[in-house]
Amino acid sequence: MSNISNSSSMTSSDVSPGESLKLVIVCVGLPARGKSYITKKLQRYFNWSQFNTKIFNVGNTRREKHTGPSEVPVLGPISNNCNTAPKKQEKSTENRHIGTSTTHDASFFDSSNKENLKLREKWAKETLNRLLDYLQYEDGNVGIFDATNTTKNRRKWIVETVTSRMKGSAKILFLESICTDGELIEKNIHLKLMGPDYRSMKPKLALEDFRNRLRNYESVYETIDEIEEMENQKYDVQYVKIINAGKKITSYNISGYLSSQCVFFLLNFNLTDRQIWLTPNGETEDDVRHIIGGDSDLSTNGWKFAKALPKFIARKRQEFNLRQLNKQFVKNSDFFSFHNGPHIEQKFNVWTSTLKRTNETAQYFSHNEYQMKSFRMLNDICYGSLDSSKDYDFRIDHFDEYYNMIQNKLSYRFPGLGGESYLDLISRLRPIIIELERCKEHVLLISHRVVIRVLLCYFMDLSKEMLTELDVHHGYIYCIEPKPYGLDLKIWQYDETTDDFYEVDEIELMKRKRKRLSLSVDNEYKPVLKSCNSNAAVDESYASDDDDETKIQKEPSITDIKQYQKVFCERSDSQCYEFMDSNTGKERSEKSNVEKNSDTKSISDKPLEKAINTPDVQDKLDEQISSILANKELVSRLKEASYIDNMYSHNGSLVIFKYFVGRRK
Amino acid sequence: MSNISNSSSMTSSDVSPGESLKLVIVCVGLPARGKSYITKKLQRYFNWSQFNTKIFNVGNTRREKHTGPSEVPVLGPISNNCNTAPKKQEKSTENRHIGTSTTHDASFFDSSNKENLKLREKWAKETLNRLLDYLQYEDGNVGIFDATNTTKNRRKWIVETVTSRMKGSAKILFLESICTDGELIEKNIHLKLMGPDYRSMKPKLALEDFRNRLRNYESVYETIDEIEEMENQKYDVQYVKIINAGKKITSYNISGYLSSQCVFFLLNFNLTDRQIWLTPNGETEDDVRHIIGGDSDLSTNGWKFAKALPKFIARKRQEFNLRQLNKQFVKNSDFFSFHNGPHIEQKFNVWTSTLKRTNETAQYFSHNEYQMKSFRMLNDICYGSLDSSKDYDFRIDHFDEYYNMIQNKLSYRFPGLGGESYLDLISRLRPIIIELERCKEHVLLISHRVVIRVLLCYFMDLSKEMLTELDVHHGYIYCIEPKPYGLDLKIWQYDETTDDFYEVDEIELMKRKRKRLSLSVDNEYKPVLKSCNSNAAVDESYASDDDDETKIQKEPSITDIKQYQKVFCERSDSQCYEFMDSNTGKERSEKSNVEKNSDTKSISDKPLEKAINTPDVQDKLDEQISSILANKELVSRLKEASYIDNMYSHNGSLVIFKYFVGRRK
Repeated sequence: MSNISNSSSMTSSDVSPGESLKLVIVCVGLPARGKSYITKKLQRYFNWSQFNTKIFNVGNTRREKHTGPSEVPVLGPISNNCNTAPKKQEKSTENRHIGTSTTHDASFFDSSNKENLKLREKWAKETLNRLLDYLQYEDGNVGIFDATNTTKNRRKWIVETVTSRMKGSAKILFLESICTDGELIEKNIHLKLMGPDYRSMKPKLALEDFRNRLRNYESVYETIDEIEEMENQKYDVQYVKIINAGKKITSYNISGYLSSQCVFFLLNFNLTDRQIWLTPNGETEDDVRHIIGGDSDLSTNGWKFAKALPKFIARKRQEFNLRQLNKQFVKNSDFFSFHNGPHIEQKFNVWTSTLKRTNETAQYFSHNEYQMKSFRMLNDICYGSLDSSKDYDFRIDHFDEYYNMIQNKLSYRFPGLGGESYLDLISRLRPIIIELERCKEHVLLISHRVVIRVLLCYFMDLSKEMLTELDVHHGYIYCIEPKPYGLDLKIWQYDETTDDFYEVDEIELMKRKRKRLSLSVDNEYKPVLKSCNSNAAVDESYASDDDDETKIQKEPSITDIKQYQKVFCERSDSQCYEFMDSNTGKERSEKSNVEKNSDTKSISDKPLEKAINTPDVQDKLDEQISSILANKELVSRLKEASYIDNMYSHNGSLVIFKYFVGRRK
Repeated sequence: MSNISNSSSMTSSDVSPGESLKLVIVCVGLPARGKSYITKKLQRYFNWSQFNTKIFNVGNTRREKHTGPSEVPVLGPISNNCNTAPKKQEKSTENRHIGTSTTHDASFFDSSNKENLKLREKWAKETLNRLLDYLQYEDGNVGIFDATNTTKNRRKWIVETVTSRMKGSAKILFLESICTDGELIEKNIHLKLMGPDYRSMKPKLALEDFRNRLRNYESVYETIDEIEEMENQKYDVQYVKIINAGKKITSYNISGYLSSQCVFFLLNFNLTDRQIWLTPNGETEDDVRHIIGGDSDLSTNGWKFAKALPKFIARKRQEFNLRQLNKQFVKNSDFFSFHNGPHIEQKFNVWTSTLKRTNETAQYFSHNEYQMKSFRMLNDICYGSLDSSKDYDFRIDHFDEYYNMIQNKLSYRFPGLGGESYLDLISRLRPIIIELERCKEHVLLISHRVVIRVLLCYFMDLSKEMLTELDVHHGYIYCIEPKPYGLDLKIWQYDETTDDFYEVDEIELMKRKRKRLSLSVDNEYKPVLKSCNSNAAVDESYASDDDDETKIQKEPSITDIKQYQKVFCERSDSQCYEFMDSNTGKERSEKSNVEKNSDTKSISDKPLEKAINTPDVQDKLDEQISSILANKELVSRLKEASYIDNMYSHNGSLVIFKYFVGRRK
């Protein structure tokens, strides 16, 4: 019915007009004013939005250069951010840069100490140059210059350096963080003492030293004022001032997509203690039948999950409230919570997509206690003309599509009407992210596995790869709590037998990629991918459930993990070879003219039999299989890329092994 | 293939969480600070986003009460906005409130004049109460209190009044407009003199009077400061300060979806002289075949249009540049342009959807001179499972869907995979609106008729009805220029015979609704809608083209306008009657069990013949037709609703006439 092709060469799914998309964000502000918190949030948002963003920290350059005790006091700006370019979320600051502790004490930051001027400037210059290299020669869109930059002179130097090097191809945005709320500053200072400069120092000494350091900075601090606005006019400099963690925001001269997005994002974040819950819909009838997309009802298991969910959430909600109430009695028990004021129970929102399976999963929530709302934006990725097809059929009947998808996981757009790519999904989910950042109430988001995957990648700052590869399953529920030092993640798994939820290791789970099967072609030169028994070991790939085989136990044992499913293809030929060898950049060069063999379908039932009838075809095949297996380099590369775990020749077929993590029913 | 139903009871297509969506925006600022410009823009944006918004202007209340010369000087705040709730775009201020000119001169606004205090407060109170009524008892989401509100006392009174009446169900956002740029103020003052208070006064006197009025206000003006921040803390009051038309923006305590949207919108508008061009794709092969949706190539006519387009745009671009250059020589020739600085030619962007038909329409633009980009957001409305169906088949085979659509034009969502509603479309287009407001460069947007319709409704502030009903055709190109007093719209029509574009009357065109045909049911009790000749006079409805019959001449003559197409249905019965009578709220009550007659298809070729074979069916039919025609009230209501223009009985059929505006080939 749908003959629409979306294979337009222009696939931008994002509003980002032709203007130059390079931005230098320059931090301004005293230490312990939440600069690093803000820049890290921005970095996460931009990277997730597919604008490559890195933080360049002068403090790190200083520490890099002086891993031992400092002898040369230097007025280099400093911040608590350790990584020049933190790519992955880290659970705590404790693990960072072990062994690179420094002892730059307060005297080091004394502004009257003139002798180190040159060295200090050299480090700042080095850091800024690295940032500009990133924008100019690498694929960087946003470089964040994380330092105090508290003097007009320093800022003037930055503006001139950026302008002369980038020649107008990058905009400059100063991001000044001001804090007039004493309590907030105190908290930030305590966070600071956990940072790299003070980790090895005694708390009391560290506090004293840091306060001295602050005084040194305060003595020279110049905020961005109207005179500077005028002076910077010719450079078209923009700024945004964030006062008291976003309570008040002043923006000046904002233009350009990235700057506008930056200010909008800063306008919407908040520090309220709250929980963001994410879970995919319960298992559906289509899942059981390995059908992707669609709009089917929940399966029996799905309904069971739907019934258990409200009870679990109610319990967790109560626990959260108790924790908050407790804080009022034991003051400062949770020092790193932003708000110690009287706890008023927040409202609890349940957001679903508009599809049946999420609405059914939310069905047992009481409308009196939960605010229900469904969003089209939370719908599953649209599979276009492949919607409602069996997930293995998709890979067999639409081999070109599957091949394309594997090659361009992020930008691959499903063909036909409405078909979406992961990039489209990110674009569609951006308003949801803004809403989740803005919302001060609890939210439980019941959506689809693809959507949950993309949202988790935002919150946990996972890599580009994980946007399409993170393992997300039915029955898992993720709880995110914003904290001053980042985010806390907890994960529970629903167990059908006990009808209850069990906590699982979130660090392990956030690293786990879903398994993808290898591909091959059948004896009609059509791709075939079949498991060796009826318990089809299909990959989770897109939306259809991955059977009980891939369900993860709380503590999977070695035998569980190594339990495998045999996967084989009836035939393998040059096409198969060439596809598998796609890393070399060779393309599939030939299309067979051999007619489709009507036997193909029946083959799946008697797998390890030969599907090839004519002897000369078989000979050619055997030869090819031998040549594939003989190519040790190819085999090892395939293993490395985790396309396969093992393969060998059996009865004239190339048999491919894939190991599946999990247990069998 | 697609068996997805989107008929979820929850159809919200917008991110607007469960929180109360009521907002009181309170203007603060001296006269001639662009308050009305900003509030009108906000009103337009919110209304288009389907948040009902009205401006309540104290100056209007004052003028309403005193249409004659004033005897009682009053210090009521004033603004140049005349309409308490301007719903439609107006081309110039000249046409407004003719005959209600007032002569409240400067002494009227003297703050030392104590005697009128009571009366002044009464008017402000009346206006604020009207606003709160709108939020509380009507369907209002946002009420804008447009007045100067320049004193702390006045603002305190507002906060207390709103809080005590709304009891926390509405948030308060102060919107202070500050102007320190002398040139900008001068321009605003000159605009002011065209307003209702000064229209009938001599320019020089008016200017003097207005300056005195300004001085009176300046003497008591108190900006929102930190003390007021503190005082208003318990009321959770938010504010945003716009300094020099958005150059600098300070926001305080912003929370809530509407406030956040408001600030984001204000962050992104700009006053640069530029052009926004909108045009639907050229005619496609699917259009010729009356197929909706799809992704076909352009037709011969479509390619002709695509070739002509870049030449036309290049000419218009040159004209624009000449105009801008001219301004530099004849200073102040265009006093109402914001920027008189040296003109630098802007870049010109061409934005398309990702579908073939828009990319093909853009194909002849030079990539050197134009910045090309395609956006998925600009794609046609998604017809879901009805995609690629013939548009009359849709109305016949999916009568329920069509019925639903006619009943709920805005919220009706096409069934099946990815199917969208107009509300979904608005939600999808919002980032495009923000980009168009933010962009300082020229943009030509080549999209689809439905999308162009929705975008035009935003820019021209058209009514809710026009969102689905505005007449938009292939070959039309709309040019929008932002001006200090609003927007300038010009429209050109492509003429294939001369291969050139001609300007058409934009006022007439912005009022014109597309024609929708009446509906009926066939002799199998299935709805049928057919034209009496092969030149099918189908309505434009959704995406399929409406033939040459409906193309509009530059100056259509009476005979052209009255040229009509006969439209008839083979049979009419009680279902027809009930559908047509849907205004009464009656629903279609019966479904026929009669089997589908295979003759139906062939009937269309020999239209005015009887489709009914059995005499008793014919008798029943004749009776029903007579009863329909006898119901004078029904007939006149159908005519009023422009479902039909005329109808009569002919050879046992009910013949319905629809007039089409335009000429035949």
